[in-house]
Amino acid sequence: MSKDKIIRPVILPGFMELLPNEQLAFNKMLNIIKESYELFGFVPLDTPIIEKADVLLAKAGSEATLQTYKFKKGSTSQALRFDLTVPLARYVSQHFHELTFPFRRYQIGKVYRGEKPQKGRFREFYQCDVDIIGHNELDYSNDAEILAVTYFTFKRLDLGKFVIKLNNRKILSGYLEDLGIESKITAVMRLIDKLDKIGADVFMEELKKLSLSKEQISILEEILTIKKDSASIIKHLKDLNLKNEKFVKGLAELEEVVKIVKLYQIPEEFWQIDLSIARGLDYYTSTVFETFLEDYLDLGSVCSGGRYDNLAAYYTNEKLPGVGISLGLTRLFDQVNEINLINTHRSTPTKILLVSLTGSLSEIFNFATNLRNNMIAAQVYEQKDSLSKMLEYANKIGVPYVGILGEDELRDSKITVKNMSSGEQELVDQNNLVEYFKKKL
Amino acid sequence: MSKDKIIRPVILPGFMELLPNEQLAFNKMLNIIKESYELFGFVPLDTPIIEKADVLLAKAGSEATLQTYKFKKGSTSQALRFDLTVPLARYVSQHFHELTFPFRRYQIGKVYRGEKPQKGRFREFYQCDVDIIGHNELDYSNDAEILAVTYFTFKRLDLGKFVIKLNNRKILSGYLEDLGIESKITAVMRLIDKLDKIGADVFMEELKKLSLSKEQISILEEILTIKKDSASIIKHLKDLNLKNEKFVKGLAELEEVVKIVKLYQIPEEFWQIDLSIARGLDYYTSTVFETFLEDYLDLGSVCSGGRYDNLAAYYTNEKLPGVGISLGLTRLFDQVNEINLINTHRSTPTKILLVSLTGSLSEIFNFATNLRNNMIAAQVYEQKDSLSKMLEYANKIGVPYVGILGEDELRDSKITVKNMSSGEQELVDQNNLVEYFKKKL
Repeated sequence: MSKDKIIRPVILPGFMELLPNEQLAFNKMLNIIKESYELFGFVPLDTPIIEKADVLLAKAGSEATLQTYKFKKGSTSQALRFDLTVPLARYVSQHFHELTFPFRRYQIGKVYRGEKPQKGRFREFYQCDVDIIGHNELDYSNDAEILAVTYFTFKRLDLGKFVIKLNNRKILSGYLEDLGIESKITAVMRLIDKLDKIGADVFMEELKKLSLSKEQISILEEILTIKKDSASIIKHLKDLNLKNEKFVKGLAELEEVVKIVKLYQIPEEFWQIDLSIARGLDYYTSTVFETFLEDYLDLGSVCSGGRYDNLAAYYTNEKLPGVGISLGLTRLFDQVNEINLINTHRSTPTKILLVSLTGSLSEIFNFATNLRNNMIAAQVYEQKDSLSKMLEYANKIGVPYVGILGEDELRDSKITVKNMSSGEQELVDQNNLVEYFKKKL
Repeated sequence: MSKDKIIRPVILPGFMELLPNEQLAFNKMLNIIKESYELFGFVPLDTPIIEKADVLLAKAGSEATLQTYKFKKGSTSQALRFDLTVPLARYVSQHFHELTFPFRRYQIGKVYRGEKPQKGRFREFYQCDVDIIGHNELDYSNDAEILAVTYFTFKRLDLGKFVIKLNNRKILSGYLEDLGIESKITAVMRLIDKLDKIGADVFMEELKKLSLSKEQISILEEILTIKKDSASIIKHLKDLNLKNEKFVKGLAELEEVVKIVKLYQIPEEFWQIDLSIARGLDYYTSTVFETFLEDYLDLGSVCSGGRYDNLAAYYTNEKLPGVGISLGLTRLFDQVNEINLINTHRSTPTKILLVSLTGSLSEIFNFATNLRNNMIAAQVYEQKDSLSKMLEYANKIGVPYVGILGEDELRDSKITVKNMSSGEQELVDQNNLVEYFKKKL
């Protein structure tokens, strides 16, 4: 083919594509998340990426829906899913009679938003969602369960210290009602949600613009900045002795969640009540969560969620309260990869590369099959090359061990195992190869 | 919300969506495939589902490209990938200098084709591809490796007896050249590819229409219907003593592949040379594979592939020969699910549901954490309900074991474990719970 016919091989901006070493690190994180969700007994779900536009955009107008990929196929308007919550609502409504409630599902999949591509923003990204959906009612123990699975997942992701911030939106909005600034709740909540971004000074200025009194601002400041253990915060809120119904309800819900979280014995260094966590999304009505990596607070929340009174009002008259959390894996990976928080020095899942110096492959094929049957990833170097060339290949793909079969080893039923990072070599009985690696790996 | 605002929750035709019990069975198959590919040291790859239309459709005109989902976003023509081979070609060209060759990758992901929806045909479906790409050259031992990983995967999928049919396209086309019907090669190859569908009689009629002589047809029939072991077939072909260059080359390649497959000790009941395997796709130039479930031959080939001389001529001047295979999981799952070849009676990954009869949850939370830390999926029934209601829930979701903590068990540091299929109950030491399940599961 002549040069002028060649099309430049590129992908679209805003799409993440990884090299093998990064992809392995990405998949490792994804597998930990998947495993963690399953160890809590959440059921996997997989919904179509393309859905009917009118179904997917039933609740139009939010930022996400404005960025939706839409197109026509034949006469049908179709769209790519922009999150996993809307498909969940559709799924639970559609299959209502076939599901057992509370319905505990997780879904890990790609979603699409036509955002302006920029650092840390992707048009195609993985969401890892876990939700519990009740029918008519859903105990607040489920909110604690969502916090527990988040804790379990981040512990296993091993990204350093983290903290899950917990709040109940009713507390703050009840408090604002009580302050007599009910009409400004939405505006104040949005400001609180942006508090981290805009800083305390701008925050105060903006509150003044909303004509809050000095006293109101100072009371608000106090409640938003309590940094205490959960028991003290709950006591502080109780001591306010407010009669506002919303406030009282929110506090009782929060107390119930905290009670169960404590039964789970999740250390308080990993979670805290933070009354400034508001989350901008309108559909959270009660519990809200945000998760921060403590050494990298500027990454913002890496896993957020909360409780919604009614998941699927657009699709069904059944009342379906739910609580869940979403981990944006593509963005999180991009961030932790950039700050070298994860190991990306291997480019292969192979644990041992088997090479033959005798020209005969039958023995090492046999070893490979044995190792694989014992769930140890093995690869055979099949081409005839010099040992140095084979070791060079092993180094390039970052395989941890090379098994070398020469004339001597063949005669003595041994195999030389070379540790590629230390350079050490050991002579291992061919019959013990599987046991040897089971101990090593 | 009033009834008239409700949008009917449905998905588009031609898309597969599963209930939890089916999804678990689907994921089990997918995990086996993924594990098998990794145990052979293939690197995972994940490419965008959306790509630039001119890149994805560089080689236009095939059936797949005509069915492509295309749309404009801004001023850019974009398309959804219709297979995983074109993105692989693009990836290898784009990242050529960053990869180590032979490049061994697998990719499992959804692809899109706007086919007319009908039984067994999907518009969104999973392909599970594994390929080895060389630079300039690629030993035929790699073709054997692809057959070996296919064998390993289907063994572990446990779908009954299967056979991987192996051929080399050069043999047949060389033979046709030798017969002096060179100009009719494409037409004859296409007929051979359809042999199973159209049957022997129609096949013969069509060959006559192509004005093949009676003698030519009889020679062709002979070669296409040899049913012998690989050694006898190779001997039969050698004994023909043909001088046609293509035939001789193809036979030598096939012999090399067979030699390595035998070194792998793959029993011949699981693979066979079949000279009638042609595969319609133009880009296979040498080795071709098809895989059949022996008890369900009417499902057609469930995993096919082969060797292509040059993967990425549209994107690069580097010569990149490759060999690979593709397993269409969505269609395969649909088929084996329909004939009840797979187990779909569980609707949860949970192995043990823990219930408390004492009203106290702290102990069973503790057990749950312990089990999860040991990779045993556990779920706590947190609502206060009667035992019969809790067991009813356990039955509904199909959990295999329920752990019951009553007053007696609490006093004696025991827990009652109920096997939900046999109904048997055992009293287990609380400290031995993890060990107990490690043995059971």
